[in-house]
Amino acid sequence: MSSVTKKFDSRRIRLGMVGGGQGAFIGAVHRIAARLDDRYELLAGALSSDATRASASATLLGIAPERSYASFEEMAAVEAGREDGIEAVAIVTPNHLHFAPSKAFLEAGIHVICDKPVTATLEEAKELAKIVGASDRLFILTHNYTGYAMLRQMREMIASGDIGKLRHVQAEYAQDWLTEAVEKTGAKGAEWRTDPSRSGAGGAIGDIGTHAFNAAAFVTGEIPSSLYADLTSFVPGRQLDDSANILLRYESGAKGMLWASQIAVGNENALSLRVYGDKGGLEWHHRVPDELWFTPYGEPKRLITRNGAGAGAAANRVSRVPSGHPEGYLEGFATIYREAADAIIAKREGKTAAGEVIYPGMEDGLAGLAFIDAAVRSSQTSTWVKIDI
Amino acid sequence: MSSVTKKFDSRRIRLGMVGGGQGAFIGAVHRIAARLDDRYELLAGALSSDATRASASATLLGIAPERSYASFEEMAAVEAGREDGIEAVAIVTPNHLHFAPSKAFLEAGIHVICDKPVTATLEEAKELAKIVGASDRLFILTHNYTGYAMLRQMREMIASGDIGKLRHVQAEYAQDWLTEAVEKTGAKGAEWRTDPSRSGAGGAIGDIGTHAFNAAAFVTGEIPSSLYADLTSFVPGRQLDDSANILLRYESGAKGMLWASQIAVGNENALSLRVYGDKGGLEWHHRVPDELWFTPYGEPKRLITRNGAGAGAAANRVSRVPSGHPEGYLEGFATIYREAADAIIAKREGKTAAGEVIYPGMEDGLAGLAFIDAAVRSSQTSTWVKIDI
Amino acid sequence: MSSVTKKFDSRRIRLGMVGGGQGAFIGAVHRIAARLDDRYELLAGALSSDATRASASATLLGIAPERSYASFEEMAAVEAGREDGIEAVAIVTPNHLHFAPSKAFLEAGIHVICDKPVTATLEEAKELAKIVGASDRLFILTHNYTGYAMLRQMREMIASGDIGKLRHVQAEYAQDWLTEAVEKTGAKGAEWRTDPSRSGAGGAIGDIGTHAFNAAAFVTGEIPSSLYADLTSFVPGRQLDDSANILLRYESGAKGMLWASQIAVGNENALSLRVYGDKGGLEWHHRVPDELWFTPYGEPKRLITRNGAGAGAAANRVSRVPSGHPEGYLEGFATIYREAADAIIAKREGKTAAGEVIYPGMEDGLAGLAFIDAAVRSSQTSTWVKIDI
Amino acid sequence: MSSVTKKFDSRRIRLGMVGGGQGAFIGAVHRIAARLDDRYELLAGALSSDATRASASATLLGIAPERSYASFEEMAAVEAGREDGIEAVAIVTPNHLHFAPSKAFLEAGIHVICDKPVTATLEEAKELAKIVGASDRLFILTHNYTGYAMLRQMREMIASGDIGKLRHVQAEYAQDWLTEAVEKTGAKGAEWRTDPSRSGAGGAIGDIGTHAFNAAAFVTGEIPSSLYADLTSFVPGRQLDDSANILLRYESGAKGMLWASQIAVGNENALSLRVYGDKGGLEWHHRVPDELWFTPYGEPKRLITRNGAGAGAAANRVSRVPSGHPEGYLEGFATIYREAADAIIAKREGKTAAGEVIYPGMEDGLAGLAFIDAAVRSSQTSTWVKIDI
Repeated sequence: MSSVTKKFDSRRIRLGMVGGGQGAFIGAVHRIAARLDDRYELLAGALSSDATRASASATLLGIAPERSYASFEEMAAVEAGREDGIEAVAIVTPNHLHFAPSKAFLEAGIHVICDKPVTATLEEAKELAKIVGASDRLFILTHNYTGYAMLRQMREMIASGDIGKLRHVQAEYAQDWLTEAVEKTGAKGAEWRTDPSRSGAGGAIGDIGTHAFNAAAFVTGEIPSSLYADLTSFVPGRQLDDSANILLRYESGAKGMLWASQIAVGNENALSLRVYGDKGGLEWHHRVPDELWFTPYGEPKRLITRNGAGAGAAANRVSRVPSGHPEGYLEGFATIYREAADAIIAKREGKTAAGEVIYPGMEDGLAGLAFIDAAVRSSQTSTWVKIDI
Repeated sequence: MSSVTKKFDSRRIRLGMVGGGQGAFIGAVHRIAARLDDRYELLAGALSSDATRASASATLLGIAPERSYASFEEMAAVEAGREDGIEAVAIVTPNHLHFAPSKAFLEAGIHVICDKPVTATLEEAKELAKIVGASDRLFILTHNYTGYAMLRQMREMIASGDIGKLRHVQAEYAQDWLTEAVEKTGAKGAEWRTDPSRSGAGGAIGDIGTHAFNAAAFVTGEIPSSLYADLTSFVPGRQLDDSANILLRYESGAKGMLWASQIAVGNENALSLRVYGDKGGLEWHHRVPDELWFTPYGEPKRLITRNGAGAGAAANRVSRVPSGHPEGYLEGFATIYREAADAIIAKREGKTAAGEVIYPGMEDGLAGLAFIDAAVRSSQTSTWVKIDI
Repeated sequence: MSSVTKKFDSRRIRLGMVGGGQGAFIGAVHRIAARLDDRYELLAGALSSDATRASASATLLGIAPERSYASFEEMAAVEAGREDGIEAVAIVTPNHLHFAPSKAFLEAGIHVICDKPVTATLEEAKELAKIVGASDRLFILTHNYTGYAMLRQMREMIASGDIGKLRHVQAEYAQDWLTEAVEKTGAKGAEWRTDPSRSGAGGAIGDIGTHAFNAAAFVTGEIPSSLYADLTSFVPGRQLDDSANILLRYESGAKGMLWASQIAVGNENALSLRVYGDKGGLEWHHRVPDELWFTPYGEPKRLITRNGAGAGAAANRVSRVPSGHPEGYLEGFATIYREAADAIIAKREGKTAAGEVIYPGMEDGLAGLAFIDAAVRSSQTSTWVKIDI
Repeated sequence: MSSVTKKFDSRRIRLGMVGGGQGAFIGAVHRIAARLDDRYELLAGALSSDATRASASATLLGIAPERSYASFEEMAAVEAGREDGIEAVAIVTPNHLHFAPSKAFLEAGIHVICDKPVTATLEEAKELAKIVGASDRLFILTHNYTGYAMLRQMREMIASGDIGKLRHVQAEYAQDWLTEAVEKTGAKGAEWRTDPSRSGAGGAIGDIGTHAFNAAAFVTGEIPSSLYADLTSFVPGRQLDDSANILLRYESGAKGMLWASQIAVGNENALSLRVYGDKGGLEWHHRVPDELWFTPYGEPKRLITRNGAGAGAAANRVSRVPSGHPEGYLEGFATIYREAADAIIAKREGKTAAGEVIYPGMEDGLAGLAFIDAAVRSSQTSTWVKIDI
C-alpha cells in the first residue's frame, strides 16, 4: 500500500491554502482550526501574491517547494492533476479575492473552504451560487461563530420550542479597532477592510454585521425578510460604514435590531445575541462563550454551560473538554473544519454525511451578501428593503 | 414662635399627595423617597377616587382626617388657604390624571412634583408647559433614574470631554412583565398602562421608553433631533405597543438605537446605557447601579464605583453611604426629592438654588411626550420624524 | 386625645440616639434606616461627648433643645421620667461605649437598638447578656446584613432542605480602606477601629469578620463550634489585626473558611457567602445584593432575584420595590429597624410579636464576641479554640 | 537529505505517548495541545495496558503498528535505538504510573513531558528529582494553568512591583463532580482519583489543590514556607479528601488561604487567584481566563484583557488571536507544549533556550508533592507543617 493510497483511506483531508502568508491573521487561524482535530494535512499553497513571501511562508509551514505556487490558478490546475493532489482548499484572502479562486478550485474538482463574506458583491455571490449548484464539490463558508457549542445549544432549544414563538432578536457585534483612521497608518487589515474595491460595499456591516446576522439566523432558524438601515462612517475620510444601526422584520411577525460597530470604544469582539419568544428568552455573549442564559417565562434565569448541566446533544457533540474548562474562538472555528472534514470524507466514500448539514455554506454566503446589499440600499434610500435571497 | 412658624423655618417641606392610596406601588415609592432624607412632612392627601379607600389610606399614613380630601380640586383650594397648608404636592396618578391636578395646584400656588410621563398627550404637555412657564411655582418630574449617582458621573464625564465628541448611543429598557395578557387578569398596573385612554398613545414607549430616552439625554446633554420607530404589539388584543425598536439621529451627527420592550423574557427592569465618543466609552447597567465602566480609547476598561476611586463631585454629592455598600432605586428617587426640597426652600427664601438645576422638570416632560408622539407617528408612517421640542 | 396619647397608639416608636453627631457615618445610616419605613420619631439625643457638637447636631436633626443631653446617663434618667419619653434608643458609638449606655437604658426601661459588635469584650458581652435576660426590654443588634432579602431567601431555602445537609461554608468580608496607616492621618473611623482600648481585641475580625460570621450563621442556622485563626497586622505599627484567615468546624461535621481583610486592595465592602450542602449550593455577593445563585446538584445554576421568580415568602416580606429595581444597604438596615418596631409595638401592646423573631439580638452579640475572643486566642496559641457561647 | 535528517532539522518534535488510549480525557488533551502549534508528530505509543485497546487506539491516531508498544519499558528501549526514534514522550497515566516511565525514558535519553502531580508520593518525587538532575534530558510538568496568558501577565506585573510587596493570597479550585460517590458507579476518572494506591495520599488536594498551589506560586514567585490544613472526606466511604481548607504562611511575611473542593455544588473548574500587595491587587478567574482585574490602590479597578490594552510582553508572547476572541484551556495547555518544543529544539541544537525557562518542571513537581505531603500531615497532626522543598 503506497503512502498515497494510505492517505486516501485515512481520516485526514489533503488541504491547500490560498492566501494566509506570514503575518496574515486569519490564515493562521484557519491552519490551527484545521489542525486542532487532526483531520487535515496542509500540502500545498498559493500563500501570497508576493513570490518571495509565498515561498518563505511555505517553507515555514513545511509545504514542499514544488507545491508552493505562484498563483491560485496554477495551483488548481497542477493539484487537480496529481494523484496525491489536494482534496480541499482554504481560501483566506481579502473579500474581493474569494470569487475567482472559489470558482477555479470548484471547477478543478476541489472542495472549497472559504472565509466570509463569500464574495465582495451580491452579483458575484449569485454567480458563485450557480457554480456551486452545478458542482458536485462542497462549499464551506467559515462563519465560525456557528461552531460555538452554545450557539448550537440555542439553535437546538429554539427548534425544540423552548422559547416558544419567536418575537424579538437583539443582535450585536461591537468592536473599537477602527475608532481612529488606522487604515492610514499602515495596518493592512484595516486598509483592505475600509477599501470598497477590496472589501465590497459594506464596511462594518460586511466585516462583522454579517457575523451577527448569520449567527442570529443560525440560532433562530429564521432569516429576516426586510430591514431598515442607518449606516454611518464616523471617521473622517473613511469610505465605508464603521457603524450600522439596523431594524429587522421577519416573515413570521418577529422583529429585531442589529447593531454593528467598529468605533464602539471599549468593545473588542463583542458579539452578543438575545432572543425572545413568547415562552422564554436566551442570551449569549461571546466574551464568555461557554455560557448560555435561558429564561423560561416566570422562572429564575438558568445558566447552561457547555458540557454541563442543561446542555443538550447538539452542544455536547462539538465540545472537547469538560465543563468549566473554557473553550473559545479557535475551538469554534475548528468545529467548522471538523464538520467539513466529515462531509468531505462522506463525499469521498460516496456517502451522504449523516444527520443535518450544519456547517455554513453557499446559502449563508448568499444571505450575507443580500443582507449587506439590502443594508446599503436601505441606508441610501431611507426605506425598508427586502433581503433578496 | 408657633409650631407653624417653626416649620416655615425648617429644612422640611409640607407635602400633599394626589393618588397613591393603599396598594399603589408608585405612591409608596414617592413617600419613601420623600422621607429618606427627612426633607418632607406628608400632611394632606387626595389619595384615591374611592372615598373609603382614600380615608383608610390617610389614616394609615398619619394624615389628619380633615386634610384627607375627596378630590384634588378641593385639596388645592383648601390647602392654598391654610396658613400651614402644603407647599408642594406629589402627583402619582395614572398618566391621564397628571394634567388636571398639576394645573390646579400650580394655579393654587403650590409646587408640583409629578410622576412621569408628564401628561398623556403631547397637546396636554404643551399646554402644561405654558402654565408652568407662567407660574412662579416649581414643577419637578420624577424621572428618577437621573438621581442615580453613576448617571450623574456619566453626565459630568461627558460634559468634561472624557469620551470626546459623541458618536453613538445605545439605550435600552427591557422588561418582561407584559409577556402575557396580564391586563386581562386584574392587574391594575397593567390595565391602565395598556389602555390608550389612560396611558396615552404610547405603551412600552411611554412607560419605559421615555425613561431610556430621558436618561440618555441626561447623560449626553443632547436630545436626538429625529427618530425612526418600529412599534409592535406582540400580545394579541393589546392596543398599545409592548415593544419599540427605534433609530436615533442627533443634530451633532451622533446616532443611536433605543430599544424598549415589555415582552423580553428574563429582563426585569433592565435599563442600560452605552455611550461612545471619539475618545472613549461609558457603560452603565441598572442591575448594578453603583458601577460605571469607563473606557478611554486604547486603555484598559476602568470600573468607577459610587463614592469610590474615580468618582467625581457630581456623583459624590448624591451618595449617602460608602462605596461598596449598594445604593439603589429608592436612593435615586430620593435624590430627586432632596433636590426638589432644596429648590423649594430656596424659592421660599427668595433665593435661586445654588448651582445647576439638575432635577428633571417640564422640559424633560415635553421632550418625553414629543418622543412618544414622534415614535408613534414614525411607526405609522414609516418615515423619520422630527422630535418636536 | 392628647398628642402624647395619640403617639402611644400610633405605629411609630419614640426614639433617642446615643452618638451619631455630625460627621458620624453610622449614626446617619441608623437615622435613615429608622425613617425609611416611617416607624420612628427621633426625639432625643446624647449625640456627642462634645457639648457644642451635640447641641448643633440636635438642632440639625430637629431635636428639641431640652432633649439634647450632655450624657447618656442624664438622657436615660430624664427620658424615663417623661410621659412622652423615648421608648427606644439607638446606640451608635464606638465599641467600647456600647456596654454602659445599653445597661443604662435597659435599666431605665427603654428598649435598646445597638450597633455591632455588642461590646468591646466578651466579658462585657456576658454581663450585658445577663442584664438583657433580667430585663423585659428588647435588645436589638444591628447586624444589618441579615436584613437583605436574599439572605432571608438563603436562610429559608437552607432551612427547607434545598441544599441538603450542610458541608462547607465559604464566608468573606474584604475591604481595602486600611491598606495604609490612615489611622495616623486623622481619619476618626480608622482611629478608633485600630485602637484596642476603643475597639476591643479584634481589628478586622471585630469590625467586619463578625459580619461575615453572623451572616453565615444567619443563613445556615448553624454556629461553628470551633475555629483556627491566623490574624495579621500588615500595616507597620498597627496594634490590631487588619487581616484574618480562619478555618471553621461545625458540630454537624460541616467545615468552613472565613476571610476578613481590610487590606485587600480593590475590595470595597465585599461580603460574600457561598454555602454548599450535599444536594446543592447557594452563592451571594453583597455587590449585587438582590441576586442569589442557587445550584441544585446536577442542574443548571439558577439566578433567583429579589421579588422575582424563585423568591419565597421570607424574602418577599422584606422587599419594598419590584424585582429589577435594586435595593441596597439602607433598605437592609431599615428592615432591621422595621422588625424592631414591630416587636416594640407588640411589647407595648402586651403581645408577643407574630412569627419568628428574626432580627439579631443579644445571642448574636454574644456569639460575635465569642468568635472574636476565640479567634484572638487561637491566633495567639496556634490551636483550635472552642467558640464559647 | 534523508527524511529522517530533515525531521531532525525541522521545527517539529518526534513524540511518543504513555497512556491516553481511547476514552482517556487527559490523553486527548495532551494530543490537541501538542498539535495546536504544529510542533510535534505523534509517532509512537504505549497507550494502554490493555493490548487490544492500545492497538486500536494507535490505529486511530495514525501510529504505525510497529511503534505501538505493549509496555512503556519496551517503548523506551526500542525507540531509543531507532535513528528516527522519539525525542520526547508524554506521560498521561494515573499518578502512580508517572515515576517508572519518567525514569525509563529519561534514562533512555528521551525528554519527558509528564502530567501532574509529578508522582504519587513525595519519596518518589525526590528520587525522580535526582534522576532528572543527573540527566541531560528535559523534564516538563504540564501544570497547564501556567500557560494562560493572564497568569503570565499577573506574574510579570507582580515581578515588576505593580502590586508592591506581597501580603495576601487567596487561591481556590472548586469543583462539584465528586459531590456524590461517583467512584462507585464506574466512572474511571473518579475511581483512581479516590484510590490512595493510584492517586497517592491526596484526593482533592492532589488533583486540584496542587493546581491552585502551583498557579499561586507561579504568579507570585513565592512558595509558602508552611501550611495548616484541615482535610475532609465528606462523601461516606471515600478514603481521600474531597475538600481541603488550608492556611498558608510565606517566608516574606505574606499569608494566604487555599481552598480545594470537589464537592462544592455549582462549581465546574473554578480556579481563582486573588493576590494583594501593599500597592495593589490582582484578580483572575478561570471562568473568563482572558481577563485580569488590576487594582492599583486608590484607583478604579482596571480590566486588562489578553492581547488588549494593558497587556504586556509576557502575555502577548503566548496569545494566538486578537483580544475579544476567547482563548481557553486547550490554548493554555498548548503553550506549555510549545515552550517545551522550543526548549527541546534548543537542546537538540546544543543551545540553551533563550530567556527564562518558564514552563513548569521538576521543581514544581517537587513543590507540589511537598505541598500534598505537608497538607496531609498537618491535617493529621493539627500543627503547622513546613513545606519541605
